[in-house]
Amino acid sequence: MAKKNKPVKPKARLPKGLRDVDARELRALKRMLATIEEVYELYGFEPVETPAMEYTDALGKFLPDEDRPNEGVFSFQDEDEQWLSLRYDLTAPLARYVAENYDGLAKPYRSYRVGYVYRNEKPGPGRYRQFMQFDADTVGTPTPAADAEICMLAADTMEALGIPRGSYLMKVNNRKVLDGVLESIGIAQDGSDFELQRLTVLRAIDKLDRLGPDAVRLLLGEGRKDESGDYTKGAGLQDAQISQVIAFVEAGAPEAAGVLNNLRAVVGQSETGLQGVAELEEMAGLFDAAGYGADRIMLDPAVVRGLGYYTGPVFECELTFEAETEDGEIARFGSVGGGGRYDDLVARFKGIEVPATGFSIGVSRLMTALDHLGKLDSDAVSAPVIVLVMDPSRKADYQRMVQSLRNEGVRAEMYLGGSGMRAQMKYADKRGAPCVVIQGEDELAAGELQIKDLIEGAKLSEEIDDNKAWREGRPAQFSVPEADLVEAVRSVLARHES
Amino acid sequence: MAKKNKPVKPKARLPKGLRDVDARELRALKRMLATIEEVYELYGFEPVETPAMEYTDALGKFLPDEDRPNEGVFSFQDEDEQWLSLRYDLTAPLARYVAENYDGLAKPYRSYRVGYVYRNEKPGPGRYRQFMQFDADTVGTPTPAADAEICMLAADTMEALGIPRGSYLMKVNNRKVLDGVLESIGIAQDGSDFELQRLTVLRAIDKLDRLGPDAVRLLLGEGRKDESGDYTKGAGLQDAQISQVIAFVEAGAPEAAGVLNNLRAVVGQSETGLQGVAELEEMAGLFDAAGYGADRIMLDPAVVRGLGYYTGPVFECELTFEAETEDGEIARFGSVGGGGRYDDLVARFKGIEVPATGFSIGVSRLMTALDHLGKLDSDAVSAPVIVLVMDPSRKADYQRMVQSLRNEGVRAEMYLGGSGMRAQMKYADKRGAPCVVIQGEDELAAGELQIKDLIEGAKLSEEIDDNKAWREGRPAQFSVPEADLVEAVRSVLARHES
Repeated sequence: MAKKNKPVKPKARLPKGLRDVDARELRALKRMLATIEEVYELYGFEPVETPAMEYTDALGKFLPDEDRPNEGVFSFQDEDEQWLSLRYDLTAPLARYVAENYDGLAKPYRSYRVGYVYRNEKPGPGRYRQFMQFDADTVGTPTPAADAEICMLAADTMEALGIPRGSYLMKVNNRKVLDGVLESIGIAQDGSDFELQRLTVLRAIDKLDRLGPDAVRLLLGEGRKDESGDYTKGAGLQDAQISQVIAFVEAGAPEAAGVLNNLRAVVGQSETGLQGVAELEEMAGLFDAAGYGADRIMLDPAVVRGLGYYTGPVFECELTFEAETEDGEIARFGSVGGGGRYDDLVARFKGIEVPATGFSIGVSRLMTALDHLGKLDSDAVSAPVIVLVMDPSRKADYQRMVQSLRNEGVRAEMYLGGSGMRAQMKYADKRGAPCVVIQGEDELAAGELQIKDLIEGAKLSEEIDDNKAWREGRPAQFSVPEADLVEAVRSVLARHES
Repeated sequence: MAKKNKPVKPKARLPKGLRDVDARELRALKRMLATIEEVYELYGFEPVETPAMEYTDALGKFLPDEDRPNEGVFSFQDEDEQWLSLRYDLTAPLARYVAENYDGLAKPYRSYRVGYVYRNEKPGPGRYRQFMQFDADTVGTPTPAADAEICMLAADTMEALGIPRGSYLMKVNNRKVLDGVLESIGIAQDGSDFELQRLTVLRAIDKLDRLGPDAVRLLLGEGRKDESGDYTKGAGLQDAQISQVIAFVEAGAPEAAGVLNNLRAVVGQSETGLQGVAELEEMAGLFDAAGYGADRIMLDPAVVRGLGYYTGPVFECELTFEAETEDGEIARFGSVGGGGRYDDLVARFKGIEVPATGFSIGVSRLMTALDHLGKLDSDAVSAPVIVLVMDPSRKADYQRMVQSLRNEGVRAEMYLGGSGMRAQMKYADKRGAPCVVIQGEDELAAGELQIKDLIEGAKLSEEIDDNKAWREGRPAQFSVPEADLVEAVRSVLARHES
């Protein structure tokens, strides 16, 4: 503790990449999360929460930046020298949770969870080191029906949030199809460099949207120098191999049947590839039967997701309307969430296979989208009524007025500062108070109160030019007997609500 | 990432002092937080949220264990070598927030916030390293009316949560009175050891409830050896001084007027002490005027709070009913929250005085209390209806049934596992499903569905002894035309709701 005679004066500031959240945003966030929760509950998912930190070895290394294995997470040693890390996503802790509680859980285990995750990365515009994710997962079943359900869940969630059909698109692909393509071009799954090479290919494809097909060709081949001169080593594929991968990525078609045909062509005889196509076909059948057309959920071979741990279907929820990017350009809003099947993650702990699939929403990104669409609802809580302190020795009386309002459910407070009338009115304005309650000497003598309607007053003040007339007329201000306080305030509130 | 040919198998376990939260507890928590929020909103407080980590210097060192300055917090260095720490409470980050955003805030700034805090301490029964706090604070005013309001807020919150009047007590004291007592016994506030000596006295008094007056006398004097043989150094007061401190602690009385008289006697001529008594008197007047009697809020000189940073009124919310402790003994439930005035905390950053007062609820502790009182409400979400998969090739049909239920707001899911009838029924039981929907070959041919009411079934099964009669009678199971699915399920749900 700072000794009184040795003052330190730290600067009040947050570390980079962190932010505070104000009342308006918190209220909107709460509403948004409640809507998502409602859909997830309707689907039979149950909430669960894990702590913010875990043993580092339990989290594993599943970040996109796997080539920098010691970066990306916030870690510290416990007193017994074991390493702890802050969670970087909600999937790795779920895998630990399921493995630890396996026998007690009803399986398939359907759960959802929301919480902050932490990345020890370089922050940038819209990129924070603490941000919120909202995940749903089904653990303990290999059926593509579980993957399909997650996709429908995501689509329903977008609509429940007010994103119109046509403005979002759930895009679905399958990692096994990519593996099949790699197999068909002679890159064997049991090769020692397979994981790394596959990851390089994945990341190259993942950049298609941003860099275009020519850049992706370079990244699949020798490598690419970007505009800043930085060189990215490529996957080292030959031209014919590259063409096959590009054919896979460009296998899209308006209807599922067309995509499936195209994919069958690119995977050739690869069993893994054909299994991937079969899974996509089963999912497409379920979408079709449930009435989710290609305007809501579509197969898209260009979606691969950057994470290494997916083993089957992968999905990405894209918002298709245009908006200004953080660089000030106009572009498709883009991804607000994604996920896929990760059959090996729980098996890491259990030794036995525990197939799983899930979907994760990037909460801030989705909030930005809803804000853009005007679908962010945060104004439901009305600002408090302020009882002014006209005579500091009568605080007990003013407090009693506040209490009578609160007892009737009216949000209210007594002004607690030490300032005069002008400052009190300024405070009421800044809080957005609908009205203030005034009882000075005259009103007290008459057994009355003045109610000043600030919303009405603000309107009228635009119409009245004459300052003197304004003060004398006391527009939007009226007297009531003290006993009618609650009723009078209620009538002001009701007027502004309607 | 673990290479496929080099498997690692970490143990699925949480670090000590951390825990997962299951669905039942999360639902109850959500409800409880919503109730607290509602009261805080009614009082005109606004939500705000700060991130889980801060610069270590911004958090300061305000933990109870100030004699171990490097312990208590989780810290790590940023890449620029600055130290970051996980927040250990919600007050220090609020002070940083207010200092950083001072000019933009309406003052007095009334805010509330809820979140996890982290303590790098030895965990024990009921003592976790991540736990939740719910705080309300009024920043920017020195008036005891603000402290009084916080106390009324706490009392109202307890009642809103269902804790009956008489089962909780908000106890109020004032640090200035203690300082006055210290002054009156010759311990000067400007002495170089004053802070440390005061803290030792505080901690000794804080142990009154747990250890009794004899132990406190020892801790105020030379020191005390506890049952385990550990020795705690005392505050080094002389006998006469100790008696004066004990007289302060025991200055309680049934009514505020009596306490105030007793306190005036113990502070003697100390100006600080008399100011503390005057503040308590103003607060008592406000409690009285607002109708908060000594059965809800009372002055209690034995309440001092262990934290060093309080500068004026301090409060503690105690639950007065008896319950089993974590050691299996029967005792008063005790504190579920506390707080006080901390006029120097924001000034650390600003250089100017920013007086503040606040109250913090220990959320888990309060939940335990509500659970004990039977006031924890978590059963409002009904378990999902399960549509069984009688024929795996007909998943699309079952999925459609699920969808028709969800479209009507009925929580429902298709069984996604790969197992047979028995396992599916076991799953439905484990989930607590109110009913299952069955369509096998026969029902399909007849255009019908079977609805099996599991709640009714469980009741009947207790009455029917004969296994054969049970199976043949199919109690609580009935057929409906496929088109009547939603209506039939609804009637089952309605039956169990009423």
